[in-house]
Amino acid sequence: MARNVIFCLAIFAFLLGFASADWNILKQKTKINGLQITLKNFCEAWRMNVELRNIRDFEVVPEECVSYIGKYMTSSQYKVDSERTIDEINVYLSTNCRFQKDGTDAWIFDIDDTLLSTVPYYKKNGFGGQKLNLTSLEEWKSQGKAPALEHSVKLFNILKGLGVQIILISSRRETLRTATIDNLVDQGIFGWTSLILRVADDESKNIQSFKSGVRKQFISDGYNVWGILGDQWSSIEGFPNAKRAFKLPNPLYYVA
Amino acid sequence: MARNVIFCLAIFAFLLGFASADWNILKQKTKINGLQITLKNFCEAWRMNVELRNIRDFEVVPEECVSYIGKYMTSSQYKVDSERTIDEINVYLSTNCRFQKDGTDAWIFDIDDTLLSTVPYYKKNGFGGQKLNLTSLEEWKSQGKAPALEHSVKLFNILKGLGVQIILISSRRETLRTATIDNLVDQGIFGWTSLILRVADDESKNIQSFKSGVRKQFISDGYNVWGILGDQWSSIEGFPNAKRAFKLPNPLYYVA
Repeated sequence: MARNVIFCLAIFAFLLGFASADWNILKQKTKINGLQITLKNFCEAWRMNVELRNIRDFEVVPEECVSYIGKYMTSSQYKVDSERTIDEINVYLSTNCRFQKDGTDAWIFDIDDTLLSTVPYYKKNGFGGQKLNLTSLEEWKSQGKAPALEHSVKLFNILKGLGVQIILISSRRETLRTATIDNLVDQGIFGWTSLILRVADDESKNIQSFKSGVRKQFISDGYNVWGILGDQWSSIEGFPNAKRAFKLPNPLYYVA
Repeated sequence: MARNVIFCLAIFAFLLGFASADWNILKQKTKINGLQITLKNFCEAWRMNVELRNIRDFEVVPEECVSYIGKYMTSSQYKVDSERTIDEINVYLSTNCRFQKDGTDAWIFDIDDTLLSTVPYYKKNGFGGQKLNLTSLEEWKSQGKAPALEHSVKLFNILKGLGVQIILISSRRETLRTATIDNLVDQGIFGWTSLILRVADDESKNIQSFKSGVRKQFISDGYNVWGILGDQWSSIEGFPNAKRAFKLPNPLYYVA
Protein backbone atom coordinates (compact mmCIF):
# COMPACT_ATOMS: atom_id res chain seq x y z
CA MET A 1 0.00 0.00 0.00
CA ALA A 2 2.73 2.45 1.05
CA ARG A 3 4.71 1.60 -2.10
CA ASN A 4 1.54 2.09 -4.15
CA VAL A 5 1.11 5.57 -2.73
CA ILE A 6 4.77 6.54 -3.26
CA PHE A 7 4.66 5.25 -6.84
CA CYS A 8 1.50 7.25 -7.33
CA LEU A 9 2.89 10.48 -5.96
CA ALA A 10 5.96 10.13 -8.17
CA ILE A 11 3.83 9.77 -11.32
CA PHE A 12 1.58 12.61 -10.18
CA ALA A 13 4.54 14.94 -9.60
CA PHE A 14 6.08 13.94 -12.93
CA LEU A 15 2.84 14.62 -14.85
CA LEU A 16 2.30 17.90 -13.08
CA GLY A 17 5.85 19.05 -13.76
CA PHE A 18 5.57 18.02 -17.38
CA ALA A 19 2.26 19.79 -17.97
CA SER A 20 3.13 23.00 -16.24
CA ALA A 21 6.78 23.71 -16.99
CA ASP A 22 5.76 26.91 -18.73
CA TRP A 23 3.22 27.90 -16.08
CA ASN A 24 5.67 27.46 -13.23
CA ILE A 25 7.60 30.54 -14.29
CA LEU A 26 4.39 32.54 -14.44
CA LYS A 27 3.38 31.29 -10.99
CA GLN A 28 6.57 32.02 -9.06
CA LYS A 29 5.77 34.58 -6.39
CA THR A 30 7.57 37.79 -5.64
CA LYS A 31 6.78 40.74 -3.38
CA ILE A 32 5.87 44.09 -4.93
CA ASN A 33 4.35 46.95 -2.91
CA GLY A 34 3.84 44.53 -0.02
CA LEU A 35 1.75 42.18 -2.20
CA GLN A 36 2.83 38.61 -2.95
CA ILE A 37 2.43 38.50 -6.70
CA THR A 38 3.24 36.17 -9.56
CA LEU A 39 4.69 37.08 -12.94
CA LYS A 40 1.26 36.23 -14.39
CA ASN A 41 -0.34 38.83 -12.04
CA PHE A 42 2.28 41.37 -13.11
CA CYS A 43 1.86 40.80 -16.87
CA GLU A 44 -1.93 40.71 -16.63
CA ALA A 45 -1.86 44.04 -14.74
CA TRP A 46 0.41 45.46 -17.43
CA ARG A 47 -2.00 44.33 -20.17
CA MET A 48 -5.08 45.62 -18.31
CA ASN A 49 -3.49 49.04 -17.76
CA VAL A 50 -2.58 49.25 -21.46
CA GLU A 51 -6.24 48.65 -22.34
CA LEU A 52 -7.37 51.17 -19.68
CA ARG A 53 -5.05 53.67 -21.39
CA ASN A 54 -3.12 54.22 -18.18
CA ILE A 55 0.08 52.91 -19.77
CA ARG A 56 0.94 54.94 -22.87
CA ASP A 57 3.81 55.41 -25.28
CA PHE A 58 5.45 52.07 -24.58
CA GLU A 59 8.02 51.08 -27.19
CA VAL A 60 8.20 47.40 -26.31
CA VAL A 61 6.28 44.85 -24.30
CA PRO A 62 8.22 44.26 -21.04
CA GLU A 63 10.66 41.42 -21.76
CA GLU A 64 9.33 39.21 -18.98
CA CYS A 65 5.78 39.52 -20.37
CA VAL A 66 6.52 38.78 -24.05
CA SER A 67 5.53 35.13 -23.71
CA TYR A 68 2.35 36.04 -21.75
CA ILE A 69 1.28 38.64 -24.33
CA GLY A 70 2.18 36.30 -27.21
CA LYS A 71 -0.03 33.64 -25.68
CA TYR A 72 -2.92 36.07 -25.32
CA MET A 73 -2.67 37.31 -28.92
CA THR A 74 -2.85 33.73 -30.23
CA SER A 75 -5.47 32.52 -27.74
CA SER A 76 -9.17 31.96 -28.10
CA GLN A 77 -9.59 34.61 -25.36
CA TYR A 78 -8.30 37.27 -27.78
CA LYS A 79 -10.87 36.09 -30.33
CA VAL A 80 -13.68 35.99 -27.77
CA ASP A 81 -12.78 39.48 -26.48
CA SER A 82 -12.83 40.82 -30.06
CA GLU A 83 -16.08 39.01 -30.93
CA ARG A 84 -17.67 40.65 -27.89
CA THR A 85 -16.66 44.10 -29.16
CA ILE A 86 -18.43 43.35 -32.45
CA ASP A 87 -21.49 42.03 -30.58
CA GLU A 88 -21.71 45.36 -28.74
CA ILE A 89 -21.51 47.23 -32.05
CA ASN A 90 -24.42 45.13 -33.31
CA VAL A 91 -26.42 46.13 -30.22
CA TYR A 92 -25.55 49.77 -30.93
CA LEU A 93 -26.53 49.46 -34.62
CA SER A 94 -29.93 48.03 -33.80
CA THR A 95 -30.81 50.30 -30.88
CA ASN A 96 -29.10 53.67 -31.34
CA CYS A 97 -28.46 54.25 -35.03
CA ARG A 98 -31.16 56.08 -36.96
CA PHE A 99 -29.56 55.86 -40.38
CA GLN A 100 -30.35 58.64 -42.87
CA LYS A 101 -30.22 56.16 -45.79
CA ASP A 102 -29.28 58.95 -48.20
CA GLY A 103 -25.65 57.97 -48.78
CA THR A 104 -24.31 60.06 -45.88
CA ASP A 105 -24.23 57.28 -43.25
CA ALA A 106 -20.63 56.27 -42.66
CA TRP A 107 -18.45 54.03 -40.51
CA ILE A 108 -14.67 54.25 -40.08
CA PHE A 109 -12.38 51.24 -39.83
CA ASP A 110 -8.70 51.11 -38.99
CA ILE A 111 -6.83 48.40 -40.96
CA ASP A 112 -3.95 46.80 -39.03
CA ASP A 113 -5.18 44.55 -36.21
CA THR A 114 -8.69 45.73 -36.91
CA LEU A 115 -9.46 44.26 -40.36
CA LEU A 116 -6.12 42.55 -41.05
CA SER A 117 -3.96 40.84 -38.44
CA THR A 118 -0.26 41.63 -38.02
CA VAL A 119 0.07 38.84 -35.45
CA PRO A 120 1.91 36.53 -37.92
CA TYR A 121 4.58 39.24 -38.31
CA TYR A 122 4.95 39.83 -34.57
CA LYS A 123 5.00 36.09 -33.94
CA LYS A 124 8.19 35.90 -36.03
CA ASN A 125 9.59 39.15 -34.58
CA GLY A 126 9.65 38.81 -30.82
CA PHE A 127 5.95 39.39 -30.06
CA GLY A 128 6.22 43.08 -29.20
CA GLY A 129 9.41 42.56 -27.20
CA GLN A 130 11.60 44.10 -29.91
CA LYS A 131 11.65 47.76 -30.89
CA LEU A 132 9.66 48.45 -34.05
CA ASN A 133 11.65 47.91 -37.23
CA LEU A 134 9.50 49.89 -39.66
CA THR A 135 11.38 48.72 -42.75
CA SER A 136 10.89 45.08 -41.88
CA LEU A 137 7.21 45.58 -40.92
CA GLU A 138 6.47 47.49 -44.15
CA GLU A 139 8.30 44.84 -46.15
CA TRP A 140 6.00 42.23 -44.57
CA LYS A 141 2.90 44.34 -45.25
CA SER A 142 3.97 44.82 -48.87
CA GLN A 143 3.71 41.05 -49.38
CA GLY A 144 -0.05 41.39 -48.80
CA LYS A 145 -0.30 38.20 -46.75
CA ALA A 146 -1.96 39.56 -43.58
CA PRO A 147 -4.93 37.36 -42.65
CA ALA A 148 -8.39 38.86 -42.09
CA LEU A 149 -9.83 39.24 -38.59
CA GLU A 150 -13.11 37.45 -39.19
CA HIS A 151 -15.13 39.25 -36.49
CA SER A 152 -14.41 42.65 -38.07
CA VAL A 153 -15.06 41.40 -41.60
CA LYS A 154 -18.47 40.21 -40.41
CA LEU A 155 -19.21 43.76 -39.20
CA PHE A 156 -17.84 45.24 -42.44
CA ASN A 157 -20.30 43.12 -44.43
CA ILE A 158 -23.24 43.92 -42.15
CA LEU A 159 -22.58 47.66 -42.58
CA LYS A 160 -22.17 47.25 -46.34
CA GLY A 161 -25.52 45.45 -46.39
CA LEU A 162 -27.11 48.37 -44.54
CA GLY A 163 -25.88 50.80 -47.19
CA VAL A 164 -23.40 52.46 -44.82
CA GLN A 165 -20.39 54.06 -46.54
CA ILE A 166 -17.21 52.46 -45.30
CA ILE A 167 -14.14 54.64 -44.82
CA LEU A 168 -10.79 53.00 -44.15
CA ILE A 169 -8.27 55.25 -42.38
CA SER A 170 -4.87 53.68 -41.80
CA SER A 171 -1.46 54.90 -40.69
CA ARG A 172 0.02 52.77 -43.48
CA ARG A 173 1.91 54.89 -45.98
CA GLU A 174 0.64 55.69 -49.46
CA THR A 175 3.45 53.53 -50.92
CA LEU A 176 1.61 50.49 -49.56
CA ARG A 177 -1.66 51.30 -51.38
CA THR A 178 -1.56 48.56 -54.01
CA ALA A 179 -0.36 45.91 -51.59
CA THR A 180 -3.05 46.96 -49.10
CA ILE A 181 -5.86 46.81 -51.65
CA ASP A 182 -4.66 43.44 -52.93
CA ASN A 183 -4.42 42.10 -49.38
CA LEU A 184 -7.89 43.32 -48.41
CA VAL A 185 -9.58 41.99 -51.56
CA ASP A 186 -7.69 38.71 -51.33
CA GLN A 187 -9.13 38.32 -47.82
CA GLY A 188 -12.69 38.99 -49.02
CA ILE A 189 -12.81 42.60 -47.85
CA PHE A 190 -14.13 44.93 -50.57
CA GLY A 191 -16.81 47.53 -51.20
CA TRP A 192 -15.39 50.47 -49.22
CA THR A 193 -15.99 54.09 -50.21
CA SER A 194 -12.58 55.57 -49.35
CA LEU A 195 -9.18 54.26 -48.37
CA ILE A 196 -7.09 56.98 -46.74
CA LEU A 197 -3.40 56.31 -46.21
CA ARG A 198 -0.66 58.66 -45.02
CA VAL A 199 1.06 60.90 -47.56
CA ALA A 200 4.41 62.60 -46.93
CA ASP A 201 2.68 65.72 -45.53
CA ASP A 202 1.05 63.68 -42.77
CA GLU A 203 4.30 62.32 -41.45
CA SER A 204 5.00 65.33 -39.26
CA LYS A 205 1.71 64.78 -37.38
CA ASN A 206 1.12 62.08 -34.82
CA ILE A 207 -1.39 59.41 -35.84
CA GLN A 208 -4.19 60.76 -33.65
CA SER A 209 -3.98 64.20 -35.32
CA PHE A 210 -3.74 62.62 -38.77
CA LYS A 211 -6.85 60.50 -38.18
CA SER A 212 -8.85 63.33 -36.53
CA GLY A 213 -7.98 65.56 -39.49
CA VAL A 214 -9.32 62.99 -41.95
CA ARG A 215 -12.52 62.64 -39.89
CA LYS A 216 -12.93 66.42 -39.90
CA GLN A 217 -12.82 66.43 -43.69
CA PHE A 218 -15.43 63.67 -44.04
CA ILE A 219 -17.73 65.28 -41.47
CA SER A 220 -17.52 68.68 -43.16
CA ASP A 221 -18.28 66.90 -46.46
CA GLY A 222 -21.61 65.95 -44.88
CA TYR A 223 -21.03 62.38 -43.71
CA ASN A 224 -22.75 61.16 -40.54
CA VAL A 225 -20.02 59.08 -38.95
CA TRP A 226 -21.92 56.63 -36.76
CA GLY A 227 -18.90 54.81 -35.43
CA ILE A 228 -15.24 53.91 -35.54
CA LEU A 229 -13.62 50.55 -34.96
CA GLY A 230 -9.93 50.51 -34.11
CA ASP A 231 -7.43 48.71 -31.92
CA GLN A 232 -5.47 51.81 -30.78
CA TRP A 233 -6.78 54.72 -28.72
CA SER A 234 -5.16 57.04 -31.30
CA SER A 235 -7.58 55.68 -33.93
CA ILE A 236 -10.67 56.42 -31.91
CA GLU A 237 -9.89 59.48 -29.75
CA GLY A 238 -9.52 63.15 -30.70
CA PHE A 239 -11.82 65.78 -32.12
CA PRO A 240 -14.05 65.67 -34.14
CA ASN A 241 -15.19 62.19 -33.32
CA ALA A 242 -17.77 59.68 -34.47
CA LYS A 243 -21.01 59.29 -32.52
CA ARG A 244 -19.40 56.27 -30.85
CA ALA A 245 -16.03 54.59 -30.94
CA PHE A 246 -15.21 50.97 -30.16
CA LYS A 247 -11.80 49.62 -29.23
CA LEU A 248 -10.54 46.15 -29.97
CA PRO A 249 -7.95 44.73 -27.56
CA ASN A 250 -4.30 45.01 -28.61
CA PRO A 251 -1.45 44.98 -26.10
CA LEU A 252 1.24 44.24 -28.74
CA TYR A 253 2.28 47.81 -29.52
CA TYR A 254 1.31 51.44 -28.96
CA VAL A 255 0.63 54.03 -31.67
CA ALA A 256 0.47 57.61 -30.37
CA MET B 1 1.73 -2.97 -12.18
CA ALA B 2 -1.61 -2.62 -14.00
CA ARG B 3 -3.41 -2.44 -10.65
CA ASN B 4 -0.92 0.19 -9.49
CA VAL B 5 -1.68 2.33 -12.50
CA ILE B 6 -5.46 1.99 -12.13
CA PHE B 7 -5.25 2.85 -8.41
CA CYS B 8 -3.15 5.83 -9.34
CA LEU B 9 -5.51 7.12 -12.01
CA ALA B 10 -8.42 6.82 -9.59
CA ILE B 11 -6.64 8.95 -6.97
CA PHE B 12 -5.53 11.41 -9.62
CA ALA B 13 -9.09 11.81 -10.96
CA PHE B 14 -10.47 12.16 -7.43
CA LEU B 15 -7.96 14.87 -6.49
CA LEU B 16 -8.53 16.72 -9.72
CA GLY B 17 -12.32 16.64 -9.31
CA PHE B 18 -12.01 17.80 -5.71
CA ALA B 19 -9.70 20.71 -6.50
CA SER B 20 -11.58 22.03 -9.48
CA ALA B 21 -15.29 21.59 -8.71
CA ASP B 22 -15.74 25.33 -9.02
CA TRP B 23 -13.55 25.67 -12.10
CA ASN B 24 -15.40 22.94 -13.96
CA ILE B 25 -18.42 25.15 -14.45
CA LEU B 26 -16.22 27.92 -15.81
CA LYS B 27 -14.44 25.46 -18.12
CA GLN B 28 -17.47 23.82 -19.75
CA LYS B 29 -17.35 24.61 -23.44
CA THR B 30 -20.09 25.99 -25.61
CA LYS B 31 -20.16 27.28 -29.19
CA ILE B 32 -20.69 31.02 -29.81
CA ASN B 33 -20.08 32.61 -33.22
CA GLY B 34 -18.43 29.39 -34.36
CA LEU B 35 -15.88 29.52 -31.50
CA GLN B 36 -15.70 26.85 -28.81
CA ILE B 37 -15.70 28.96 -25.69
CA THR B 38 -15.94 28.46 -21.95
CA LEU B 39 -17.97 30.47 -19.46
CA LYS B 40 -14.65 31.83 -18.19
CA ASN B 41 -13.84 33.10 -21.72
CA PHE B 42 -17.28 34.67 -21.95
CA CYS B 43 -17.12 36.43 -18.56
CA GLU B 44 -13.53 37.58 -19.12
CA ALA B 45 -14.57 39.06 -22.50
CA TRP B 46 -17.48 40.80 -20.80
CA ARG B 47 -15.15 42.29 -18.18
CA MET B 48 -12.54 43.35 -20.76
CA ASN B 49 -15.16 45.08 -22.91
CA VAL B 50 -16.50 46.93 -19.85
CA GLU B 51 -12.98 48.26 -19.19
CA LEU B 52 -12.56 49.12 -22.90
CA ARG B 53 -15.78 51.13 -22.58
CA ASN B 54 -17.41 49.11 -25.35
CA ILE B 55 -20.08 47.84 -22.95
CA ARG B 56 -21.94 50.77 -21.39
CA ASP B 57 -25.04 51.42 -19.34
CA PHE B 58 -25.30 47.93 -17.92
CA GLU B 59 -27.63 47.68 -14.93
CA VAL B 60 -26.39 44.35 -13.62
CA VAL B 61 -23.46 42.01 -14.12
CA PRO B 62 -24.70 39.08 -16.28
CA GLU B 63 -26.04 36.47 -13.87
CA GLU B 64 -23.71 33.72 -15.11
CA CYS B 65 -20.68 35.99 -14.51
CA VAL B 66 -21.50 37.18 -10.99
CA SER B 67 -19.25 34.57 -9.39
CA TYR B 68 -16.41 35.33 -11.84
CA ILE B 69 -16.62 39.09 -11.24
CA GLY B 70 -16.95 38.58 -7.47
CA LYS B 71 -13.78 36.49 -7.54
CA TYR B 72 -11.93 39.18 -9.48
CA MET B 73 -12.99 41.99 -7.15
CA THR B 74 -11.70 40.06 -4.13
CA SER B 75 -8.57 38.71 -5.83
CA SER B 76 -4.97 39.80 -5.62
CA GLN B 77 -5.21 40.45 -9.39
CA TYR B 78 -7.62 43.34 -8.70
CA LYS B 79 -5.11 44.74 -6.22
CA VAL B 80 -2.18 44.28 -8.60
CA ASP B 81 -4.12 45.90 -11.47
CA SER B 82 -4.93 48.89 -9.23
CA GLU B 83 -1.37 49.15 -7.89
CA ARG B 84 -0.14 49.30 -11.47
CA THR B 85 -2.45 52.24 -12.20
CA ILE B 86 -0.91 54.09 -9.26
CA ASP B 87 2.61 53.16 -10.43
CA GLU B 88 1.83 54.77 -13.79
CA ILE B 89 0.62 57.92 -12.05
CA ASN B 90 3.92 58.05 -10.18
CA VAL B 91 5.77 57.84 -13.51
CA TYR B 92 3.59 60.68 -14.80
CA LEU B 93 4.20 62.80 -11.68
CA SER B 94 7.95 62.46 -11.96
CA THR B 95 8.29 62.91 -15.72
CA ASN B 96 5.45 65.12 -16.98
CA CYS B 97 4.25 67.35 -14.16
CA ARG B 98 5.89 70.76 -13.87
CA PHE B 99 4.11 71.89 -10.72
CA GLN B 100 3.59 75.65 -10.26
CA LYS B 101 4.02 75.30 -6.47
CA ASP B 102 1.88 78.38 -5.89
CA GLY B 103 -1.21 76.67 -4.47
CA THR B 104 -2.86 76.20 -7.87
CA ASP B 105 -1.65 72.64 -8.52
CA ALA B 106 -4.58 70.26 -8.08
CA TRP B 107 -5.56 66.61 -8.39
CA ILE B 108 -9.11 65.20 -8.46
CA PHE B 109 -10.15 61.95 -6.77
CA ASP B 110 -13.41 60.09 -6.98
CA ILE B 111 -14.41 58.45 -3.68
CA ASP B 112 -16.30 55.16 -4.08
CA ASP B 113 -14.05 52.35 -5.34
CA THR B 114 -11.28 54.87 -5.78
CA LEU B 115 -10.43 55.91 -2.19
CA LEU B 116 -12.99 53.80 -0.32
CA SER B 117 -14.11 50.33 -1.31
CA THR B 118 -17.78 49.37 -1.69
CA VAL B 119 -16.81 45.75 -2.26
CA PRO B 120 -17.98 44.69 1.26
CA TYR B 121 -21.46 46.00 0.39
CA TYR B 122 -21.60 44.28 -2.99
CA LYS B 123 -20.26 41.08 -1.47
CA LYS B 124 -23.38 40.93 0.71
CA ASN B 125 -25.66 42.11 -2.10
CA GLY B 126 -25.20 39.77 -5.03
CA PHE B 127 -21.89 41.12 -6.38
CA GLY B 128 -23.34 43.37 -9.08
CA GLY B 129 -25.89 40.74 -10.11
CA GLN B 130 -28.79 42.60 -8.47
CA LYS B 131 -30.25 45.89 -9.65
CA LEU B 132 -28.99 48.85 -7.63
CA ASN B 133 -31.01 49.47 -4.47
CA LEU B 134 -29.97 53.07 -3.77
CA THR B 135 -31.65 53.22 -0.35
CA SER B 136 -29.80 50.15 0.85
CA LEU B 137 -26.46 51.32 -0.62
CA GLU B 138 -26.81 54.78 0.94
CA GLU B 139 -27.79 53.21 4.25
CA TRP B 140 -24.54 51.19 4.10
CA LYS B 141 -22.49 54.27 3.17
CA SER B 142 -24.05 56.23 6.03
CA GLN B 143 -22.52 53.74 8.49
CA GLY B 144 -19.09 55.02 7.43
CA LYS B 145 -17.51 51.55 7.44
CA ALA B 146 -16.08 51.46 3.88
CA PRO B 147 -12.44 50.33 3.98
CA ALA B 148 -9.71 52.39 2.31
CA LEU B 149 -8.11 51.30 -0.95
CA GLU B 150 -4.49 51.41 0.16
CA HIS B 151 -2.96 52.03 -3.29
CA SER B 152 -5.00 55.21 -3.75
CA VAL B 153 -4.37 56.42 -0.21
CA LYS B 154 -0.65 56.08 -0.94
CA LEU B 155 -1.07 58.37 -3.95
CA PHE B 156 -3.24 60.77 -1.91
CA ASN B 157 -0.42 61.13 0.62
CA ILE B 158 2.28 61.53 -2.04
CA LEU B 159 0.29 64.37 -3.65
CA LYS B 160 -0.36 65.97 -0.26
CA GLY B 161 3.39 65.82 0.39
CA LEU B 162 4.03 67.59 -2.91
CA GLY B 163 1.71 70.44 -1.89
CA VAL B 164 -0.89 69.53 -4.50
CA GLN B 165 -4.45 70.61 -3.63
CA ILE B 166 -6.70 67.58 -3.43
CA ILE B 167 -10.26 67.88 -4.68
CA LEU B 168 -12.72 65.10 -3.97
CA ILE B 169 -15.66 64.94 -6.39
CA SER B 170 -18.19 62.24 -5.66
CA SER B 171 -21.68 61.33 -6.87
CA ARG B 172 -22.60 60.72 -3.21
CA ARG B 173 -25.38 63.03 -2.09
CA GLU B 174 -24.88 65.97 0.22
CA THR B 175 -26.88 64.13 2.93
CA LEU B 176 -23.94 61.73 3.24
CA ARG B 177 -21.40 64.51 3.95
CA THR B 178 -20.82 63.84 7.64
CA ALA B 179 -20.72 60.06 7.22
CA THR B 180 -18.33 60.46 4.29
CA ILE B 181 -15.95 62.74 6.18
CA ASP B 182 -16.01 60.44 9.21
CA ASN B 183 -15.36 57.42 7.04
CA LEU B 184 -12.45 59.05 5.19
CA VAL B 185 -10.77 60.37 8.32
CA ASP B 186 -11.34 57.08 10.13
CA GLN B 187 -9.46 55.38 7.28
CA GLY B 188 -6.53 57.80 7.53
CA ILE B 189 -7.57 59.94 4.57
CA PHE B 190 -7.47 63.66 5.41
CA GLY B 191 -5.99 66.94 4.22
CA TRP B 192 -8.12 67.57 1.13
CA THR B 193 -8.95 71.07 -0.11
CA SER B 194 -12.54 70.51 -1.26
CA LEU B 195 -15.13 67.79 -0.97
CA ILE B 196 -17.85 68.22 -3.59
CA LEU B 197 -20.98 66.10 -3.27
CA ARG B 198 -24.23 66.26 -5.23
CA VAL B 199 -26.91 68.72 -4.17
CA ALA B 200 -30.56 68.46 -5.25
CA ASP B 201 -29.92 70.69 -8.29
CA ASP B 202 -27.35 68.23 -9.65
CA GLU B 203 -29.74 65.31 -9.64
CA SER B 204 -31.21 66.17 -13.02
CA LYS B 205 -27.75 65.89 -14.65
CA ASN B 206 -25.97 62.66 -15.37
CA ILE B 207 -22.81 62.07 -13.34
CA GLN B 208 -20.44 62.90 -16.21
CA SER B 209 -22.05 66.34 -16.66
CA PHE B 210 -22.08 66.95 -12.92
CA LYS B 211 -18.38 66.12 -12.60
CA SER B 212 -17.35 68.07 -15.72
CA GLY B 213 -19.29 71.07 -14.38
CA VAL B 214 -17.39 70.94 -11.09
CA ARG B 215 -14.06 70.70 -12.96
CA LYS B 216 -15.04 73.71 -15.07
CA GLN B 217 -15.55 75.75 -11.89
CA PHE B 218 -12.19 74.77 -10.40
CA ILE B 219 -10.35 75.40 -13.67
CA SER B 220 -11.94 78.83 -14.07
CA ASP B 221 -10.96 79.56 -10.45
CA GLY B 222 -7.35 79.16 -11.61
CA TYR B 223 -6.50 75.61 -10.57
CA ASN B 224 -4.10 73.57 -12.71
CA VAL B 225 -5.73 70.16 -12.60
CA TRP B 226 -2.87 67.77 -13.30
CA GLY B 227 -4.87 64.60 -13.09
CA ILE B 228 -7.97 62.67 -12.10
CA LEU B 229 -8.20 59.24 -10.58
CA GLY B 230 -11.52 57.42 -10.85
CA ASP B 231 -12.97 53.96 -11.41
CA GLN B 232 -15.75 55.02 -13.82
CA TRP B 233 -15.35 56.55 -17.28
CA SER B 234 -17.96 59.14 -16.21
CA SER B 235 -15.53 60.40 -13.55
CA ILE B 236 -12.70 60.95 -15.99
CA GLU B 237 -14.27 61.83 -19.36
CA GLY B 238 -16.01 65.01 -20.53
CA PHE B 239 -14.96 68.60 -21.06
CA PRO B 240 -13.06 70.41 -19.56
CA ASN B 241 -10.70 67.72 -18.45
CA ALA B 242 -7.54 67.35 -16.41
CA LYS B 243 -4.18 67.16 -18.17
CA ARG B 244 -4.41 63.39 -17.74
CA ALA B 245 -6.96 60.95 -16.39
CA PHE B 246 -6.35 57.49 -14.96
CA LYS B 247 -8.92 54.75 -14.62
CA LEU B 248 -8.94 52.06 -11.98
CA PRO B 249 -10.58 48.75 -12.92
CA ASN B 250 -14.19 48.23 -11.79
CA PRO B 251 -16.54 45.84 -13.55
CA LEU B 252 -19.06 45.75 -10.65
CA TYR B 253 -21.39 48.51 -11.83
CA TYR B 254 -21.72 51.30 -14.38
CA VAL B 255 -22.31 54.99 -13.62
CA ALA B 256 -23.30 57.05 -16.68
